[in-house]
Amino acid sequence: MRIEVICTGDEVLTGKIVNTNFSYITQKLEDFGLSVAWETTVGDDRESLLTAFRLAGERADAVIVNGGLGPTVDDLSQEIAARAAGVELVLSEEWLSRMEEYFQRRGRPMPSSNRKQAMLPRGSEILDNPVGTACGFAVTIGHARFFFTPGVPRELRRMLEQEIVPRLMAMSGVQVAIRLKRFHSYGIGESHADTLLQGVEALAPEGAVKLGFRAHYPELETKLTVRGADAEDIARKLAPVEQEVRRRFGNFILAEDDQTLEGVIVAELARRNATLTVVETFTSGLICARIGHLPGAERVVRRGLAARDLGEVCAAAGVEGVPSTGGVSVRTAEAVARAARHRTAATHALAVLIDLDEGPDRIEFAGSICLAIATESGIVSRRSRIVGGRDWVRLGAAELGLDCLRRHLQGLPVTERIDFEKTEGTPPSR
Amino acid sequence: MRIEVICTGDEVLTGKIVNTNFSYITQKLEDFGLSVAWETTVGDDRESLLTAFRLAGERADAVIVNGGLGPTVDDLSQEIAARAAGVELVLSEEWLSRMEEYFQRRGRPMPSSNRKQAMLPRGSEILDNPVGTACGFAVTIGHARFFFTPGVPRELRRMLEQEIVPRLMAMSGVQVAIRLKRFHSYGIGESHADTLLQGVEALAPEGAVKLGFRAHYPELETKLTVRGADAEDIARKLAPVEQEVRRRFGNFILAEDDQTLEGVIVAELARRNATLTVVETFTSGLICARIGHLPGAERVVRRGLAARDLGEVCAAAGVEGVPSTGGVSVRTAEAVARAARHRTAATHALAVLIDLDEGPDRIEFAGSICLAIATESGIVSRRSRIVGGRDWVRLGAAELGLDCLRRHLQGLPVTERIDFEKTEGTPPSR
Repeated sequence: MRIEVICTGDEVLTGKIVNTNFSYITQKLEDFGLSVAWETTVGDDRESLLTAFRLAGERADAVIVNGGLGPTVDDLSQEIAARAAGVELVLSEEWLSRMEEYFQRRGRPMPSSNRKQAMLPRGSEILDNPVGTACGFAVTIGHARFFFTPGVPRELRRMLEQEIVPRLMAMSGVQVAIRLKRFHSYGIGESHADTLLQGVEALAPEGAVKLGFRAHYPELETKLTVRGADAEDIARKLAPVEQEVRRRFGNFILAEDDQTLEGVIVAELARRNATLTVVETFTSGLICARIGHLPGAERVVRRGLAARDLGEVCAAAGVEGVPSTGGVSVRTAEAVARAARHRTAATHALAVLIDLDEGPDRIEFAGSICLAIATESGIVSRRSRIVGGRDWVRLGAAELGLDCLRRHLQGLPVTERIDFEKTEGTPPSR
Repeated sequence: MRIEVICTGDEVLTGKIVNTNFSYITQKLEDFGLSVAWETTVGDDRESLLTAFRLAGERADAVIVNGGLGPTVDDLSQEIAARAAGVELVLSEEWLSRMEEYFQRRGRPMPSSNRKQAMLPRGSEILDNPVGTACGFAVTIGHARFFFTPGVPRELRRMLEQEIVPRLMAMSGVQVAIRLKRFHSYGIGESHADTLLQGVEALAPEGAVKLGFRAHYPELETKLTVRGADAEDIARKLAPVEQEVRRRFGNFILAEDDQTLEGVIVAELARRNATLTVVETFTSGLICARIGHLPGAERVVRRGLAARDLGEVCAAAGVEGVPSTGGVSVRTAEAVARAARHRTAATHALAVLIDLDEGPDRIEFAGSICLAIATESGIVSRRSRIVGGRDWVRLGAAELGLDCLRRHLQGLPVTERIDFEKTEGTPPSR
């Protein structure tokens, strides 16, 4: 089945907004084993829309159109859909009363301009939108079934998942259920992961499990798309593959499915009624900010301390005597973590100290990172060196610090070598 | 002149990467008064590429193709360009030696696979790429001039600006120079800004200045595209409009052109040899992290302190006695800023305290913000309430804190009402 996507709107065509709706749509379809063959972006322009609809209607079996369902004059999707389908626009009493209810619940009168949103090509099938006034609809143009969706991301998402994907699955004739299993990791690059997981798909019956990756530095998302007759069948097919991915990735898996590294850390700390203090230098608060704002973090995050100057960091943490050596060391990181934990009466303290290279930002620009985690029972630490420019070092060091904390909380070694560092990991100092 | 863009590559078509290259291309062309009429995305697939090239070649005068110039087998742009143009692929000795030099300078032998990058459709014009091995080229397909560009963003950017825009400007026949003037503001919403600036374009000769906006919450970018015979003519045409935008936006302009809010703050502090301490609650380090990592910030950012608990914040800052009232107040923010400045021996201290609403995240979720800036000569403070969900509050509060600091450093009032807050701004407490 050939699927195309048409994105509409001057804001997207002129680049005022980056087209994340398209990447969302195509990723979501991939998750269900469906793929997009062609994408077209046109502006709020009658002639362009008509041409785009006709061309896609000749080439495709299914077309998802995004945007142009709003109440204003430049929202043209229904009008042009009707022209392309060769039918007239008619008022949907059903959608009109849905909109009236929508405004009633909000205690506001419905503006007359919204009436336009209930005008649909004759014979359209309504695609429900429980979170907005834009009416989704399906209509046939040329050889293809067209699905019209709103431009507002949360309205699009809901409609795509609940209304459109089931219809596409039915059209594709594949009578199967689909599940997406996801692993989040840090420290394994995409090509390394690809090599590492070679052959795992073969642990399930042929074609049942499809492996994919999505890298968003510093993390890597590994996706298993599983097809089966039903949930039970899927679970049976997924089990050996899932187990093998966990075995091969080992300690590098930081979270699964909707979990996040930050969420795992907050949950681990909350579970043991623990509290955390974070001390940082170049990252300047980024590490603490990644977890501190989460729901539940208010009971867990004790204090964040940041300073760019090593002497100042030591003073803030309460280290006796500023270190006489120039650069950061694992020993200093340990002293800072220990002192900060003591001074703020936290159960856990994470210190991430960074020495930056000299000179302007460039691709070879690196930072040396010394980090330590202090608890009542002792201290662990590691040294690392990350190359790739100021931002790469900053984001990588924050991730490294948080992931080492996650590892420590889960009883895993914090010194395993990662793919993004330049030098070998050093063994823990104790 | 009709311009189209074709983006190629499975990674873009499957949404593995968001297509920021397209929004970059179309924005850059807009900056030069050129607009894109149509965009097509296709995968690394011979048939799709050929169809896309032929369709665009029939419709457009100029087509920019992005991606597919790499050394691997799935990079198909040159091959399909030659087929669509009806010519053969020939080796460009010029580009081959350029690549050999490129590898020589890096002390590495050129892999044989790179030779493929020097194969161009016969009769192509080379578009220089000084920062990579992908050879840009221009060739005519159908009625249109096609410009082939690399997928690597920094290679694309350089080629577009230095090689392609001048050619498009020449093709468009408009013998003018173009300049883009930008203003960055915080506190004025896009539609408010649009109303506020009504008529400013008319202060320049007709059509010489075009006004546009790009909102990226919490900031708004206001753009003036100016056309003229030369730089001097442009400056003359721009002057009255530029002046009027500054007058109408007033204190809300936080930076111009390539400046940023963070950069302005660091520069203002550095200019007076000042140092800064930042104290935060819900934002948990975000405010400090936005400025702390910048080049030069190491001399300016004294210390960052964060805690979710008000008592803990007071303790960290060194406030005597934890406030007995439950919520944050302007008075507490002032006490925290004053104490933190004193304790860390900074010339400036910014405290941003936030009381969050109870309950789950939702669009009506709000936060009450009390902030204060302490200096040797006194203290300023303000209260605000931002609505729109946890993230909206977090990002808005960080921006508000930094922008108040910028205003204070520039001798401007910190209490002007902004469009994103719920309640009226209160007058400064002294």
